[in-house]
Amino acid sequence: MRILITGGSGFLGRRLAAALLSTGTVTVDEGTPSPIERITLFDSVPADDLVPDSRVELLTGDITDRNAVEHAAAEADLVWHLAAVVSAGAEADFDLGYRINVDGTRLLLEALRATNRRPRVVFASGFAVFGGEMPESVTDEFHTTPQSSYGTQKAIGELLIADYSRKGFLDGRSLRLPTIVVRPGKPNRAASTFASSIIREPLIGAEAICPVRRDTAIYILSPRRVTEALLRAMRLPDSVWGANRTLPLPGITVTVGTMVDVLARVAGEAAAERIRWQPDPAIQRIVESWPVRAEARRARSLGFTDDGSFEAILRAHLEDEIGAGGQHA
Amino acid sequence: MRILITGGSGFLGRRLAAALLSTGTVTVDEGTPSPIERITLFDSVPADDLVPDSRVELLTGDITDRNAVEHAAAEADLVWHLAAVVSAGAEADFDLGYRINVDGTRLLLEALRATNRRPRVVFASGFAVFGGEMPESVTDEFHTTPQSSYGTQKAIGELLIADYSRKGFLDGRSLRLPTIVVRPGKPNRAASTFASSIIREPLIGAEAICPVRRDTAIYILSPRRVTEALLRAMRLPDSVWGANRTLPLPGITVTVGTMVDVLARVAGEAAAERIRWQPDPAIQRIVESWPVRAEARRARSLGFTDDGSFEAILRAHLEDEIGAGGQHA
Repeated sequence: MRILITGGSGFLGRRLAAALLSTGTVTVDEGTPSPIERITLFDSVPADDLVPDSRVELLTGDITDRNAVEHAAAEADLVWHLAAVVSAGAEADFDLGYRINVDGTRLLLEALRATNRRPRVVFASGFAVFGGEMPESVTDEFHTTPQSSYGTQKAIGELLIADYSRKGFLDGRSLRLPTIVVRPGKPNRAASTFASSIIREPLIGAEAICPVRRDTAIYILSPRRVTEALLRAMRLPDSVWGANRTLPLPGITVTVGTMVDVLARVAGEAAAERIRWQPDPAIQRIVESWPVRAEARRARSLGFTDDGSFEAILRAHLEDEIGAGGQHA
Repeated sequence: MRILITGGSGFLGRRLAAALLSTGTVTVDEGTPSPIERITLFDSVPADDLVPDSRVELLTGDITDRNAVEHAAAEADLVWHLAAVVSAGAEADFDLGYRINVDGTRLLLEALRATNRRPRVVFASGFAVFGGEMPESVTDEFHTTPQSSYGTQKAIGELLIADYSRKGFLDGRSLRLPTIVVRPGKPNRAASTFASSIIREPLIGAEAICPVRRDTAIYILSPRRVTEALLRAMRLPDSVWGANRTLPLPGITVTVGTMVDVLARVAGEAAAERIRWQPDPAIQRIVESWPVRAEARRARSLGFTDDGSFEAILRAHLEDEIGAGGQHA
């Protein structure tokens, strides 16, 4: 199998690649695992700190560059489309967000269509497609009225994935990902980046800034579960999707205050005291526009799971990122 | 007020222009009616059979031509964006549908944004944004899983209108229109065109083809009510829209069989016998993918109304199109 991961230099792309390489196989349609021939990591910046592997190809290019995208897509059997300008970035630069998140996605889908090989595509969408007036818990059938350009662009991506799939140009699946916590590495331009920083930084003795109130609730999923979900979405056969190729994922709902309390309990009060509370109304507004709870009934019936508790998320982070004696991505 | 109507040569654009010219004014924000300075009808084909009027400007151009669109948009205060490749057309030519319905809409919104005057925009969307598994009656909050490229493109248009409005680039409102019956003029490439043909043609002594079964239910609204809705959507103040700028409109649900029965009762059995029943599975499939009933609670609370009965729709058609002794658009 030849695999393409867009946004392959990001933490999720690298983590997914590492998971694939560790088994050396990928499973589709719940069938026999197939050996991985090649994993192409396509990104605008080169991936650093990758363990060298003859199966991995690094491709640096812009997702709005037709030639680069066609080259990346030409031989792909399986595609994880993770590349995106994140929420606060897309809000700050309207044109950049549409160029990367909408035009880039269309270019990729067109390049995949042109192969005439109907590749399978998993698209990373998110709960930012929801917004405005929402019920206590959003259902799988709740409408998308995004209150950010990022959410709008992800909703457009889902529609494109569904239409290209319906036409038989590809076999696409969109996952609405909860906020990923605890994200390793550096803070990024996602409005939600604080949700990882306030845990990650104190654990390594550094300060972190929290721009939202303690009572702010967020809907989260760990990197482990997200990676599993990305693999599961690729594995599920075409037949389970039917007329609806967009799947909101299960997550857990926690307040920032609870997260900090768990941090203090597990890692000590000193860790929690490394958080500086600096309210940022713009970030508070974006974060509050997202849903805090989802039923995710269909995803649960398809075997997707959440982490159970924030303590489980924190302990998984400690094992994955701190356990070996230092931080690694 | 300077008004731009895209798709201005279509029956809806011409009807809207005629309604505006007949009063010579347009009302926004429930305020005092403002005199109409100019109505620009922008379309890829020139409008025929228009009553000459010094306030009307005909602009022939392609909505994917940046210069043409910028010229059309430059001075507009109020815009009705009706231009589109219709359902069967967009399904038959995937690329054309995206070019006109998505790229064209984006070009228009960009041109309006560039004016820095925050024009008010009413976008004609439709119930084709719905599809797949649906409840008996779709709610205002039901998700969009379109089963046609046309529906996908309209859903993308709604998202763009909402995001451009949220950013303050324009003041947009999207109306999800039921199938318009009885449409005057010639059949077009809409999958729903039969719903008008089977009434319109027999009434003038011509044959019409019905490609769907008698028990096929459709959700419809008359040209009179649609025109009223387009004017009302422009009139409503910015403040009523909030975080959700997309409004599914009220309509009535009828089966094709009921429509034909009413035709026979009002215009005689001979009229109904001019319908030839020629099943077309492709058309049947598209039509059946649309919802047949909607709650339209919010629209009703804002004063939008349906026709009450198919007989009322038929009688309005007779008055508007046949009454004067002949067919006119």
